[in-house]
Order: sequence, then C-alpha cells, then structure tokens
Amino acid sequence: MGAAVDRTDVVVAGGGLIGLSVAWRAAQRGLSVTVVDESPGAGASQAAAGMLAPVTEAAYGETDLLRLCLTSLQRYPDFAAEVEAAGGRPVGLRTVGTLVVGFDEDDMRELDALHGYQRELGLAAERLTPRETRRREPSLTPRVRGGLAVDGDHSVDGRALHAGLLAAAEATGVEVLRARVRELQVTDGRATGVVLDGGRELPAGQVVLALGAHSGGLPGVPPLPVRPVKGQILRLAGAEGLLEGTVRALVRGRHVYLVPYAGDGLIIGATTEDRGFDATVTAGGVHDLLHDAIEVVPGVTELELVETLARWRPGTADNAPLLGSSGLPGLVLATGHHRNGVLLTPVTGDVVAEHLATGEVPELAAPFTVDRFVRADRLERTSP
Amino acid sequence: MGAAVDRTDVVVAGGGLIGLSVAWRAAQRGLSVTVVDESPGAGASQAAAGMLAPVTEAAYGETDLLRLCLTSLQRYPDFAAEVEAAGGRPVGLRTVGTLVVGFDEDDMRELDALHGYQRELGLAAERLTPRETRRREPSLTPRVRGGLAVDGDHSVDGRALHAGLLAAAEATGVEVLRARVRELQVTDGRATGVVLDGGRELPAGQVVLALGAHSGGLPGVPPLPVRPVKGQILRLAGAEGLLEGTVRALVRGRHVYLVPYAGDGLIIGATTEDRGFDATVTAGGVHDLLHDAIEVVPGVTELELVETLARWRPGTADNAPLLGSSGLPGLVLATGHHRNGVLLTPVTGDVVAEHLATGEVPELAAPFTVDRFVRADRLERTSP
Repeated sequence: MGAAVDRTDVVVAGGGLIGLSVAWRAAQRGLSVTVVDESPGAGASQAAAGMLAPVTEAAYGETDLLRLCLTSLQRYPDFAAEVEAAGGRPVGLRTVGTLVVGFDEDDMRELDALHGYQRELGLAAERLTPRETRRREPSLTPRVRGGLAVDGDHSVDGRALHAGLLAAAEATGVEVLRARVRELQVTDGRATGVVLDGGRELPAGQVVLALGAHSGGLPGVPPLPVRPVKGQILRLAGAEGLLEGTVRALVRGRHVYLVPYAGDGLIIGATTEDRGFDATVTAGGVHDLLHDAIEVVPGVTELELVETLARWRPGTADNAPLLGSSGLPGLVLATGHHRNGVLLTPVTGDVVAEHLATGEVPELAAPFTVDRFVRADRLERTSP
Repeated sequence: MGAAVDRTDVVVAGGGLIGLSVAWRAAQRGLSVTVVDESPGAGASQAAAGMLAPVTEAAYGETDLLRLCLTSLQRYPDFAAEVEAAGGRPVGLRTVGTLVVGFDEDDMRELDALHGYQRELGLAAERLTPRETRRREPSLTPRVRGGLAVDGDHSVDGRALHAGLLAAAEATGVEVLRARVRELQVTDGRATGVVLDGGRELPAGQVVLALGAHSGGLPGVPPLPVRPVKGQILRLAGAEGLLEGTVRALVRGRHVYLVPYAGDGLIIGATTEDRGFDATVTAGGVHDLLHDAIEVVPGVTELELVETLARWRPGTADNAPLLGSSGLPGLVLATGHHRNGVLLTPVTGDVVAEHLATGEVPELAAPFTVDRFVRADRLERTSP
C-alpha cells in the first residue's frame, strides 16, 4: 500500500489521559500525531479520583508495578508544571500527603501489615496513634483506631489534568479528531491505520491503542487480556476546609477514600465491580460509599451530592498496564492501567512515545509488554 | 381603574398541580383564565411521590384535614379519568393499596396506635402478621415485625398527572404564560392583577395565589403563615415487579416510603427539613433514604439511582392548606398544602373554582380559610 497523502506518523485511538499523554510526548519528539476520540475524557478519566498514592496502595508481589508507579509519581511535579505551562491552566496537583485509617482490629492488622511491607521496601510512612491521626485531620471521627501517614502520596484533579493535557497536546500540534474508531486497519499482517464510523480511513505509520476498558473490543485488534472493572464514584461540594489531603479508610474491611479537590470539592470512591460494561449507578453502590464516608468523616453528611457516575477501569490479571509492542507490527499498546491510570499518565507518555520514536522498549516498560501473559500461558501449558 | 382590553377574569400565579387544577376547573365554569409560571411543574410537583394515602397518614387532631383528604381521594378516580380524557395521556393512577410496616417494638406500638385511631374513625385498615405482610409484598425483608394494610390508599404518577393537567387546562382554553410573577398588583385595597418580570402588567378580576412555598414571598401579598419545608427525594429505575403498591415504613422511628410508578420506576422519599429555601441535595439526606429503603426492601440495592432532588413543601402551622379568601379582596388562596398537594389537587380545584365563580366559600373548605390563624392569634392574645 502506497503512503496516502494525509498519512500521519501516529494515530492514537482514545483521547483519555493516557492517549493524550502519549500523543503529546510523541508530538514533542517530532512525530505527526492524530488522536481519535468521540468524546475525549468521557471514559475512565472522567471518574478518576486523581490519587497519586503508590505507597499507600503498595501490594505484595507487585514490585515491578510499584517501581513504575514510584517513577511516575517522581515525575509528577515536573509533568504537572509542563502541562500547566503548555496548556495554560492549572491541573490541581495537591502535595499535602495521604492518611490511611482503620476502624476495627482487622483493619488495624491490615494497616500494620501494609506498614511492615512499606518499611521492608524502604518507603516513607509513619504509624500514628488515634490522637495523632486526628491532629492531622480533625474532621475524622473519634472512632478511628489509628492511622498511617504517607507524606509522599499526593493527588491531582483528574478532569483539570485532562483539560490541560488536551490543550497542551493541541498546542504542540496534535490533531484531535472527534470521531469514533470503528476498527483497526490491518494490511499484510501489519496495523496500517484505523477506520472511523462512517467509513473514513485514517492511515498511519503506527497505531496506539489507548481505549481503556474498550481496548480489547476493537475489531482487528488481537485478543487482549483487558476486562472492564466497574467503579462508581461520587462528587460532592461544600467541603472547603473539611480535609487537608486524601484520606483512605478501611471501614471494617471495606475500602473507601475521600479526595479533596479544587476549592470545595470532594470525591468519594470507589466501588470495584466485575459486571462487564454495566454503567448503572446503583442504589447499593451510592449507599455504601456514602455510608462509609460518613462513618470516616461525619461532616460529609452536610455536603452537597453533586454527581454520581460509573465508569470502567481497564483491568488486567496482574493489575499492571500493557505497554509497547502488541505482537502485531504497527500496533502499540498503552492500556490496562486498571486503578493507576492517573498516576501512570506521565511515565506512560514517556515510555510509549520513546517506543514510537525509537522502536525500542525502554527498560522501565520491559516488564509490562503483553507477552508476559503469553509466557505465563506457555509455562502453564508445560507444567503437568 | 377601567377594565384593560386584555383583562382576564382570573390570573393564577403558579402552574404546579394546584394552580393548574384550579385554572382548569375555573375555565370549565366559563371564566377566562391565565396561568403564569416560569417553568410549570418545576416546583414541589416535580418532587412529589404521588401518594394518595390519607388513611395511613391519619394524625390525631386533624379531623377536618382528614375529611378534606378523604373527599379528595374519593374524587380521584373520576378526576384522573377526566384529566386523561381531556389531556389525552395516562396519569398513572395506581389502586393497589398501601402497606405500613415496622421494625422494632416502638415502631409496632406506633403502628398499633395508628390502627386504633383508624378504627375509632371507622377507616378500613387491616393489621397483619409478619407472614401476612410478606405475602402481600414478598420483596420485604424478613425482619419486618408486622404491617397494616390499607387497600383504599393509592398513588398517582405526579409528573404524568402534571403533564395531563397542563394539556387538559390548555385544551379547555386556559392560557399558560411562561413568565415569572414579580409582584401582586394592588389598587385601592384590592388585588387587580400581577406584574411580570420585565414590567408587563396582567390585569385580572381575581388573582389566585398558588405559588406553593413561595406564596408568602410575593411582593404585595399580605403576610401569610406559609414556610418552606424541604424534602429530598430519590427516583430509581429497574424496579419492575419489585413492589405491588406503596410501602411506608417505620425503620426504628424513622419514616421512609417506597412508591412504585410507571413501568419500572420507584420513588423513595422523603426527608422533612426546616432549612428555609435551601435546595441542596445532601450526602446525609440521600444516605438516610437509601439506607432505610434498603433495610425495608433489600432488592433496592440493585436498582439504578436515576435522580436525586430537593424541593419545598408549603408548610403551615396546622399542616392544612389555605383555601379561599385571603382577607385582601380579589386575592384568593390555593396554597399551604404541605405534604398533601397531590392528594388535595382534585378537591382544591373544585372548591377554589367554586369560590372564584360564586364568591362563596364551599362548606368543605370553610375550615381552611386563612383567618383561622388570625382567630387563633386573637385567642392567644386574650389568654393570660
């Protein structure tokens, strides 16, 4: 196939935080980039709480992922400043720190286990008495049994960041096309572009798949281990001065988090549900979030409930993203970020743009190529 | 003042259920009628659960109000049929009956007291065992301690009724003006019309005040004992087959009701708050409604939360409406319906239209003129 006149170096399918970050970084490297999205930022980016909290989320056995998350967190201040400069608007980076609190003995055991793991890894975290916990966040209920302070875990306003990234990308020459991608174009075993709803073809040297939970469903894309993990989230107003930073709580075994943003906003999240592409905001989901949040910070009762919404995280079997080569030449992956999409936005832009420009997989991204699942499959098949 | 060319017999300020019912009935009596409302039906009518339940709401010492409510309930089937015929659309009258249930000993004592009062007044109500209660509504939690079945208490779809009444009124010649009433026009001690936002005057022989909770705040109107009583309400979907009829519950002293409507709708209501004209949907209000509703019918958990809203009931000191003469010649009252606006829509239309046409206060409405409060004031002043 000869190069079409309007062929672009890179087409990015998906204009959420991940797609825009990749597109922006690729354009900065001199590539011509088109992002295609019917409604940029209306997916998981829309419902993100914006926690940048790898240390309070550290989980056993996910050290590669933790390293990637910590690298991305480290890059956040410069990344945010650069987006703000290029996009011309604030992105709401909040560096106050994060508090994890618990209510019963099981909760506190889980907190202590987390703290032990953090120390094992040399991560900075401080175990607090109930009194110390409430000194940091006086709005917490007196029934809190103790806390864990992680000053390095921050947050960002996900919607503001998306708006900033969109402006920054466009200012750097990225074309953003409001259209739906209907299928991946594959010619002679190579991805050569995308076809839009209505039939228009968009030829490209390389295609980046950044469709979040929908990444596996695009016709033409080889089978991908990405599934939708539903999350319901609440946005409230009137919370000025209620919390200093993010509060994550274990309420008798159930997880809830409260993330202040903008002047008086508060995000309460989130459910984690395996229900396919069900977008229903349920009575039970909203009830549980409100119930647990009010239990943690009784003052939440008085806040205005502004918005309830449900979206899907792109989940993978090991909770880690899919970055780089897809196995199909010309198709590059930037998906599967599960609960870490906002946090991993800077590093994903960096490593995927590097891969697009050089063809190499940066060392940092090496553990996150899709063939780790193929390898695991093969190992399983050879075992008795 | 000479009669203006476009002077109408009656101007009704307020196009909610009450205003439209009065306007429609007055037009049927041959009067020329204009209804003025910026957004007809966007007030309390919008948030009504549509319960027609005077027997399950019977309260000691409110026998005049009960009589008015029972009369209106009796008129509902004909009224609904007439609205449907004139308006050309269904209004969702549901005649399945209402169940009241309780959870703890105090709840059951309150239920028994209500039942005793109902029997004293000769009202039809049947006390049920827990098993009988759940046979009527199998979705109820097994933890219900007993119930009270009132087959005569029904419900109507408030929004459908409003749409039907609007169409019926217009079909009968009522002019509905989308505008905001700025003030009552008073000339030589007599109401002579209204002034709209922007200054347009609307002269009228008589003015009906049907502004709900806002009735007391219209410049030119004499002081009225009407205050806003905030109610928050939830609308859910997916409830097809969940409940047969209305379920009212006392959940350890807290009241909640669940009213099925349309094909798969369910309304959960309502808070009762003295907060002035505060329209905030609060985290606490939504939580309490969901919590109690899920406690009564666990299947509510799975339903879709479609809408949350807050409006103001026009409250009075004795929970009864203000009907007929206002004390100011030319100004007629149709307000103060508090929690009974939907139920009292038919009878209010009848008695206020009769008053407009004949100048007489119908016997049924006599206990509800505003001078009962003046009389009570005087009595208080003469006591030591």
